[in-house]
Amino acid sequence: MADNYRAEYALLAERLTDRGLDVNKIKQRLKDQKIETPSWGFSNAGTRFGTYRQPGAAVSIEEKLADAAQVHKFTGVAPTVAVHVLWDFPNGAADCTNLSAYAKSLGVKIGAINPNVFQAREYMSGSITNENPAVRKQAVDHMVDSIELGKIIGSDVLSLWFADGTDYPGEGDFRRRKAYMLESLQTVYNAMPADMRMVLEYKPFEPGFYHTDIADWGMSFVMCQKCGPNAHVLVDLGHHLQGTNVEHIVAFLLDEERLGGFHFNNHKYADDDLTVGSINPYELFLIYNELAKAEDAPNGNPPVAYMVDQCHIMKSKIDAMIQTIEHIQGAYAKALCINRGKLLQAQKDYDIVTAEVCMTEAFNTDVSPLLKVVREEMGLDPNPLDAFRASGYWERMGKERGDRAGSGGVGA
Amino acid sequence: MADNYRAEYALLAERLTDRGLDVNKIKQRLKDQKIETPSWGFSNAGTRFGTYRQPGAAVSIEEKLADAAQVHKFTGVAPTVAVHVLWDFPNGAADCTNLSAYAKSLGVKIGAINPNVFQAREYMSGSITNENPAVRKQAVDHMVDSIELGKIIGSDVLSLWFADGTDYPGEGDFRRRKAYMLESLQTVYNAMPADMRMVLEYKPFEPGFYHTDIADWGMSFVMCQKCGPNAHVLVDLGHHLQGTNVEHIVAFLLDEERLGGFHFNNHKYADDDLTVGSINPYELFLIYNELAKAEDAPNGNPPVAYMVDQCHIMKSKIDAMIQTIEHIQGAYAKALCINRGKLLQAQKDYDIVTAEVCMTEAFNTDVSPLLKVVREEMGLDPNPLDAFRASGYWERMGKERGDRAGSGGVGA
Amino acid sequence: MADNYRAEYALLAERLTDRGLDVNKIKQRLKDQKIETPSWGFSNAGTRFGTYRQPGAAVSIEEKLADAAQVHKFTGVAPTVAVHVLWDFPNGAADCTNLSAYAKSLGVKIGAINPNVFQAREYMSGSITNENPAVRKQAVDHMVDSIELGKIIGSDVLSLWFADGTDYPGEGDFRRRKAYMLESLQTVYNAMPADMRMVLEYKPFEPGFYHTDIADWGMSFVMCQKCGPNAHVLVDLGHHLQGTNVEHIVAFLLDEERLGGFHFNNHKYADDDLTVGSINPYELFLIYNELAKAEDAPNGNPPVAYMVDQCHIMKSKIDAMIQTIEHIQGAYAKALCINRGKLLQAQKDYDIVTAEVCMTEAFNTDVSPLLKVVREEMGLDPNPLDAFRASGYWERMGKERGDRAGSGGVGA
Amino acid sequence: MADNYRAEYALLAERLTDRGLDVNKIKQRLKDQKIETPSWGFSNAGTRFGTYRQPGAAVSIEEKLADAAQVHKFTGVAPTVAVHVLWDFPNGAADCTNLSAYAKSLGVKIGAINPNVFQAREYMSGSITNENPAVRKQAVDHMVDSIELGKIIGSDVLSLWFADGTDYPGEGDFRRRKAYMLESLQTVYNAMPADMRMVLEYKPFEPGFYHTDIADWGMSFVMCQKCGPNAHVLVDLGHHLQGTNVEHIVAFLLDEERLGGFHFNNHKYADDDLTVGSINPYELFLIYNELAKAEDAPNGNPPVAYMVDQCHIMKSKIDAMIQTIEHIQGAYAKALCINRGKLLQAQKDYDIVTAEVCMTEAFNTDVSPLLKVVREEMGLDPNPLDAFRASGYWERMGKERGDRAGSGGVGA
Repeated sequence: MADNYRAEYALLAERLTDRGLDVNKIKQRLKDQKIETPSWGFSNAGTRFGTYRQPGAAVSIEEKLADAAQVHKFTGVAPTVAVHVLWDFPNGAADCTNLSAYAKSLGVKIGAINPNVFQAREYMSGSITNENPAVRKQAVDHMVDSIELGKIIGSDVLSLWFADGTDYPGEGDFRRRKAYMLESLQTVYNAMPADMRMVLEYKPFEPGFYHTDIADWGMSFVMCQKCGPNAHVLVDLGHHLQGTNVEHIVAFLLDEERLGGFHFNNHKYADDDLTVGSINPYELFLIYNELAKAEDAPNGNPPVAYMVDQCHIMKSKIDAMIQTIEHIQGAYAKALCINRGKLLQAQKDYDIVTAEVCMTEAFNTDVSPLLKVVREEMGLDPNPLDAFRASGYWERMGKERGDRAGSGGVGA
Repeated sequence: MADNYRAEYALLAERLTDRGLDVNKIKQRLKDQKIETPSWGFSNAGTRFGTYRQPGAAVSIEEKLADAAQVHKFTGVAPTVAVHVLWDFPNGAADCTNLSAYAKSLGVKIGAINPNVFQAREYMSGSITNENPAVRKQAVDHMVDSIELGKIIGSDVLSLWFADGTDYPGEGDFRRRKAYMLESLQTVYNAMPADMRMVLEYKPFEPGFYHTDIADWGMSFVMCQKCGPNAHVLVDLGHHLQGTNVEHIVAFLLDEERLGGFHFNNHKYADDDLTVGSINPYELFLIYNELAKAEDAPNGNPPVAYMVDQCHIMKSKIDAMIQTIEHIQGAYAKALCINRGKLLQAQKDYDIVTAEVCMTEAFNTDVSPLLKVVREEMGLDPNPLDAFRASGYWERMGKERGDRAGSGGVGA
Repeated sequence: MADNYRAEYALLAERLTDRGLDVNKIKQRLKDQKIETPSWGFSNAGTRFGTYRQPGAAVSIEEKLADAAQVHKFTGVAPTVAVHVLWDFPNGAADCTNLSAYAKSLGVKIGAINPNVFQAREYMSGSITNENPAVRKQAVDHMVDSIELGKIIGSDVLSLWFADGTDYPGEGDFRRRKAYMLESLQTVYNAMPADMRMVLEYKPFEPGFYHTDIADWGMSFVMCQKCGPNAHVLVDLGHHLQGTNVEHIVAFLLDEERLGGFHFNNHKYADDDLTVGSINPYELFLIYNELAKAEDAPNGNPPVAYMVDQCHIMKSKIDAMIQTIEHIQGAYAKALCINRGKLLQAQKDYDIVTAEVCMTEAFNTDVSPLLKVVREEMGLDPNPLDAFRASGYWERMGKERGDRAGSGGVGA
Repeated sequence: MADNYRAEYALLAERLTDRGLDVNKIKQRLKDQKIETPSWGFSNAGTRFGTYRQPGAAVSIEEKLADAAQVHKFTGVAPTVAVHVLWDFPNGAADCTNLSAYAKSLGVKIGAINPNVFQAREYMSGSITNENPAVRKQAVDHMVDSIELGKIIGSDVLSLWFADGTDYPGEGDFRRRKAYMLESLQTVYNAMPADMRMVLEYKPFEPGFYHTDIADWGMSFVMCQKCGPNAHVLVDLGHHLQGTNVEHIVAFLLDEERLGGFHFNNHKYADDDLTVGSINPYELFLIYNELAKAEDAPNGNPPVAYMVDQCHIMKSKIDAMIQTIEHIQGAYAKALCINRGKLLQAQKDYDIVTAEVCMTEAFNTDVSPLLKVVREEMGLDPNPLDAFRASGYWERMGKERGDRAGSGGVGA
């Protein structure tokens, strides 16, 4: 049974043209968007109930880069890999020599650099909000060191998440901690070279169960304002309370020119770190609607860093990452299928049903023929997951690398 | 620009056949599913902040039936109309004479009958859980009267929702109220003729803000068990706390042969009564996945009543109801596109990515060509919303009926 | 049975002294805190399911002030009354003449002035975010008029809440609406006299069910920043998603010198408008912990406006308002009972159990003897609710005023 | 500074007598309630972000029992210890010989027995819902073995929690899994001796992030019904979605005679396993209100098992457990202070404010003098936490046992 995607594409192209859209421009934008995968998405991971090891899961940064390179090889849009200083460079700068060259040999590059100021025992009671100035200094020093590593490996995004928080009322003083935090962040910010950007993550809870010091986008935003123009808010899709309208936050940050980027994943309850778009694909589409609109009318917002932050436990890791890329591309492609002229008019007329139909007809568009043609034009197999599976890479790694304890990763 | 849906359908049919599906059976099931619209969806409605009247909104039950008949005329799958005793029959049985015949003349029938035991001042502190036995009796009598009305108008589903609950800890005694409730429900149940079914709704909050007496499916289930085999749980999609896995509840109730039916709508936060599938269409698809599976392997569950419960405030009412039918059909159609053989195998193999792909490839299928062909085969316009709008009915009603205070409806 | 509260107070005073606290200062602070009641808390109210009228409920602003004066008479700490322009002054300035004098004669004063830009039919699709510039102008004009009224009646706080939002994805454009909103707010801000402050409320949903334009504290904060130094965030306790750490937000805003004030109430689910402290009294205590701490070390934050925003439906209205004042005083009193020296040391030592015990021993302190003595020293009956009930005022009003349709109020 | 608790008690006793309560009976009930501590609460624990070891944390079951015995020694109401088969008896029955005698020598007894069917690699994809019959058999066998262990160590409660669930739509089939689960549970149930009870836990999510097979009390209830009269629902306070009215569920289960017991803890967001009563103490009081009422009018509900389920990471473990017992006793004591006669009358009169005042005056009662006198009468130090700390036990264990990797526990 032949895949008729070219015939389907032809009909789709007609439909999109009817909506006043330029199909070639849509294809070009799909080719241009780059998505960063995380090194820690290729190593073993777990929940608090246990870690489940996968035979073949990467342990060294070299293996992680090799796995990430597979994702890029089959999707064509994942050329960079975020790194995690503690897990990837246990020996610091020594681990970084030649890493850029090695990455390049695999066809990828190093992306954002992620310091880790939560795992060492010293941080048991917090890092940059710790009452102990020596601990705060340790955390700041690690981040400054990470900036230096970033320079070596060619990273221009410093990606910050803090596990700082408390479990019980009274345990900490919100405002004293806020002052400690600001001072530390400003010190780190000032250590960055001019061409580096800081992206600052927020999270409402976990591992602190009563409060976290940067609990929502507003707190991250205020900190970024106080640091300077190269500090921007990082939106992790799993870091919102139930009912939050995330696309509204994205639009607001874009408008304020403070949207630094994303950590893509999805959640049904807490910070579940599931495959992006797996629980509520319409929400992902609505986020991409804002991003696509912003591309049409750029303001001073920095380039948005599209980063995946998922630690797959039960899914085969590279399969899951390719699937992730497909979900993201699907959401973007659908957002590019919106009849914007008709939508604008319906909004101005308060014809709500028509406005909504503009959204749903785009969302319900089957964009897989479009994406297959895009891949084909990029010299790729139109079905990256099938192609990767057929390559036998994962089975080979399972045999070559075997079943090993991981060198890092959440829950590992 | 011609609509190429027939060409699109041809390609889709090939794809579905490739998935091992019988396209003719899919079309037949789409023709067979019937969805009930609510009389109160055609009258004015509001929030606690105010009611916004729409010119042309129906006031009398005759007008509501006429509007509902429009929905059926253009969709072909909405032949019954749920009625609300208090709002539709303010004079009781006197309003019911000839109503069946009138409905028939419009091409529709009366569906579920909904008593109202929350609006009268006597129910300020509750109906069947009221400490005052006279109030409880008044509520029971009204429901028994509704059963009699149901016999007159040919309804075989008694649909029960209770606003009973409390606002403050201490206000009521959960267990004393439970005993009152059970006694009343059993009395009502026993008054039903053998061919009538009771469906019992649950809701976690509102209008009671601290507790409601039937707060979740479990409480409704226990009450149904204690009433008898013709009492079943009614699932209103908006009546769940954030994070609830509704499709799991649906599956559980189907398995226990206690799923009475649905009140279709959607919510992002509380009981928002938005268009079904408008906030999380994937959830609606996953619910239909369970329903479609259950049709393939029926057990002793009663026929599921598919009822809409939406009170549109801002959307044009008939437009919104036609859109609603389209959303429901879309979800059902997509559920029928799942490659069930492949899915079952992937589940047994714990190949999670493949199992999920079976779901997403079905969900991402653009079923609009399929639905257009189905409508065509039913002698309908393939685009019901456009066709209805083109008919000029709503503008005509706006002029003929004008802008009037409503005779019922939530918030009206 | 005599009330031994003086003996209980004596023992309590010893305990507090043992904690290093100055009981006289605590009493003084309890006498000094003023809480504002809302005029709309004395009129009829309802939910979307109906309004339940109470015999004696106030209709005119004069009656509302008279009822509010009762609350102040028996509690001694509620000397001001927030007014609602549309509901209280249907004829605008004409209704305001002599109102200050009338209020004074009752022993109260006018507090915050609340414009209403949501009830008129023109605002069906929004006020300051409306696509129609004429509607935006109407809303801005109403707010500017409200500023003028405020000058007449001696109000120095302009309290703003907007019902603006949407129900469906695609219905509105977040960023275009944001631009409209900012322009309108700045116009209003610039119309204020130098000694007036603007407080700006946020709310995650309702009446818009998909988005509201000022959805969280961060969005309000950014708008305030862009308006100027006399614009501050208003925290309504019911306007947070489940799981939000409200006391953290309060601390953050205090630290940023942007906490304008509160709308006190409580909720278990959505925006339930229940009596403050009735569902989670510990949360209210933790909020007061931040406020009491801030009083000890003032920064440039403006005076915090403590305002009640509750519309009682089932509770007798004046009873409920007196109970509300008692809840607030109780939370404040308990926060003043914290052993701050011990707490600080425990925080620095990361002795979490001891830190928490500092909070719980204060929270578990029965402060009713303290509050009774405070009231006695203020020349009041120690039991305000009992004293008010014994006065027969409410029964008298029920007879004199009777059971009337209300002139305003949420859901009325 | 002397502690005047006896004088405070005397005044409190007067107050309670005024409320129509029998203080001696209250004291007796406080002496009679027994609370079970969990062996795993004394070993190291963590979150998915890491385990933080405490010097002195117990490793062997003997050490855990010794630590639990300290809690009982200082509180007098914690005589039993729940055990966890996998973590406590790695060698099965061999570890159980003489354990009862050893426990007795410490002054404690073995309580509920908890099988573990989630940690072994075989359970990666589920235990009793696994598609593989061999895995299901392994899980059932382990539970049957646990029953045998229970007989040896004198346990009469089999406490079951299942980690079974899925992460993604499509991953599993709800109904096929339900059938597997029921068959397994019935097999285990039938293996119990007549004097053993099964308690069955529910949980809405985690470690499964899309669904868990026993997601709510209703699903647990149905399973218990199908097993038999000795199967009851276990309520873990952290296992509810935001907004759930837990006290209502407790009342409902008591009324249905299916409340098996509790896992005490607290949460602000997800399943945080914080100290019971630390986030919302009023909720704990409202739960105890139902329990205390049920004691006044017993039906056929089995004896309720009061079990703690907390894994303290940051708090000193034995301190935290003693604090936990104090929180539970405080909630119970406050519930016993409710003026039930006045409350009943207010409920019947729909005098909501008075009814609520009955609750709040009890909740605001400082019961610490009462509890101190109770402890004194039991021959205990009135301040168990201070007394334990003064004993030097924990410092001694820190030195003797040292800082060791744990032998079990969540996240360890």
